[in-house]
Amino acid sequence: MKIIVDLKNESAERWLPSLQAALPDHEIVWWDREASNESVLDGADAALVWHPDPALLSGLADAKALFSMGAGVDHIVGQPDLPPDVPIVRFVDPDLTDRMSEWIVLQCLMHLRQQRRYDALQDDQRWRPLRQPIASEIRVGILGLGTLGQDAAQKLRPLGFELAGWSRSAKTIAGIDTYAGDEEQSTFLGVTEILVSLLPFTPETAGFVDRSVIDRLAKCEVLGGPVYINAGRGGTQVESDIVAALEDGRLSGVSLDVFETEPLPASSPLWRISNAIITPHVAAWSSHEAVSKYVARQVGRHERGEPFENVIDLSVGY
Amino acid sequence: MKIIVDLKNESAERWLPSLQAALPDHEIVWWDREASNESVLDGADAALVWHPDPALLSGLADAKALFSMGAGVDHIVGQPDLPPDVPIVRFVDPDLTDRMSEWIVLQCLMHLRQQRRYDALQDDQRWRPLRQPIASEIRVGILGLGTLGQDAAQKLRPLGFELAGWSRSAKTIAGIDTYAGDEEQSTFLGVTEILVSLLPFTPETAGFVDRSVIDRLAKCEVLGGPVYINAGRGGTQVESDIVAALEDGRLSGVSLDVFETEPLPASSPLWRISNAIITPHVAAWSSHEAVSKYVARQVGRHERGEPFENVIDLSVGY
Repeated sequence: MKIIVDLKNESAERWLPSLQAALPDHEIVWWDREASNESVLDGADAALVWHPDPALLSGLADAKALFSMGAGVDHIVGQPDLPPDVPIVRFVDPDLTDRMSEWIVLQCLMHLRQQRRYDALQDDQRWRPLRQPIASEIRVGILGLGTLGQDAAQKLRPLGFELAGWSRSAKTIAGIDTYAGDEEQSTFLGVTEILVSLLPFTPETAGFVDRSVIDRLAKCEVLGGPVYINAGRGGTQVESDIVAALEDGRLSGVSLDVFETEPLPASSPLWRISNAIITPHVAAWSSHEAVSKYVARQVGRHERGEPFENVIDLSVGY
Repeated sequence: MKIIVDLKNESAERWLPSLQAALPDHEIVWWDREASNESVLDGADAALVWHPDPALLSGLADAKALFSMGAGVDHIVGQPDLPPDVPIVRFVDPDLTDRMSEWIVLQCLMHLRQQRRYDALQDDQRWRPLRQPIASEIRVGILGLGTLGQDAAQKLRPLGFELAGWSRSAKTIAGIDTYAGDEEQSTFLGVTEILVSLLPFTPETAGFVDRSVIDRLAKCEVLGGPVYINAGRGGTQVESDIVAALEDGRLSGVSLDVFETEPLPASSPLWRISNAIITPHVAAWSSHEAVSKYVARQVGRHERGEPFENVIDLSVGY
């Protein structure tokens, strides 16, 4: 196979050795955005992309697959030059999933254990124990029960958190109270004290977490108000509504790894709110090794006549 | 039974209602340290204590038990007026254990995920992703494999951390590489990248975590050096050695809930070291409800002729 690689903000030097090592019998070609030399695409069988160059996409109408470097595919879907019949394959991998769950568990515990308040006390050299709820007093509600949401739930459960989950279509998962579809959304929000969003960005989810969602969350008096954690996509939240809710106490805290605009502009008030924990889109990081192995695995499946895994459904956008 | 209650820094108003509710058929008497009226002790069957008044201890030679408010008993053991034949019962309870493990998992994840570096970047409104190891690259070594150590291990494992553990006497625990006794201590330290101490304070453990222990830890290049986390007792550590190791990079970070002197004096350099996470002895908190239930359970066992649970062995001090 001839596989084109076009990863925005990444370098050939970092990626090609690991891809070539995982796919020794295949031709791996780095796409040069400056040159935009479409003859490079002759005979291309697939591409591994992150925020792909439109010029690349238009030359891949006959490719067997577009591999996304991340679990999210909103950087591909909706591109005007997207070849309509090429399957888009999400990067879903235990490495990425484990990293995401580490971040989610960390953020749930930081809010539960009032870490930012203790940080502030430490800054003042003040020894002051705070009244402390236990995890089993708090219900974490997970928006999105795919691979990532289910893994997060499995890792939050041993810590004692109560769990709820919402997905577009109904799912049954041991240990989680599950809710589905528009009709059960308000019920789900009403029992949720720490809302963990893993929503993909689609036309349906754009701006979903807004004032109305925040105001439907459980009051969570033991934490001084509900908490919102987003490890999904920034476009699913309305940051002005989140800032307002943090300022007037309708939210007691947030942890945000993703933002409407990335990098988050220095002018955003979110940087300066003490119980807003900001990380720069690093919750889950696609390591070269894991992505290379994943692409090799999918190429192997294709060569054996097996279907690709985690092909997205364009009708729902993920 | 007549049960005397003497809890340093606590108030009768907070404790008596919950104790009386858990033990409705028993006489619960708050010990007034100012009055030191020993006639109150006539016919006392037991005492619930935290850093007990020596005047109280000397009047309890015939008591059936001394109940400790916490898992640690160093506040009782070694008191000169300790009645020699009264069993000392530790407070070991799922509520306390769960809280302790929440704190330990939080602290391991804060170091793994470089939270304090991200906090500093947030303070500067700087968007800068850091190179990030995954939990499975890191081995957490737990000093002390009693109820607390084993529970922490069980909650760290689903996150992917590699696990090792050390105890005085040999133990076999699924999923943990265990080491025992003096002869295996260096081997244990040599494979440990995040050292979690749950050691009790005894003459043997006093000042145990010193320069020599720190220098035997695994180098842990992915985190920039090994990490030390103490949720046990402050007297088991030499803080001047810890500060020196943080300053010259032999430790990349610490999380300390306990200290040689508590409250930690404002003059301690630990407050001001960016990757030293300081909490005011709150990792595990003994709630009124849980302690009251625990005392009631032990009293019930005694009345049915069953032995107390978690009686300490004075020959080892815990």
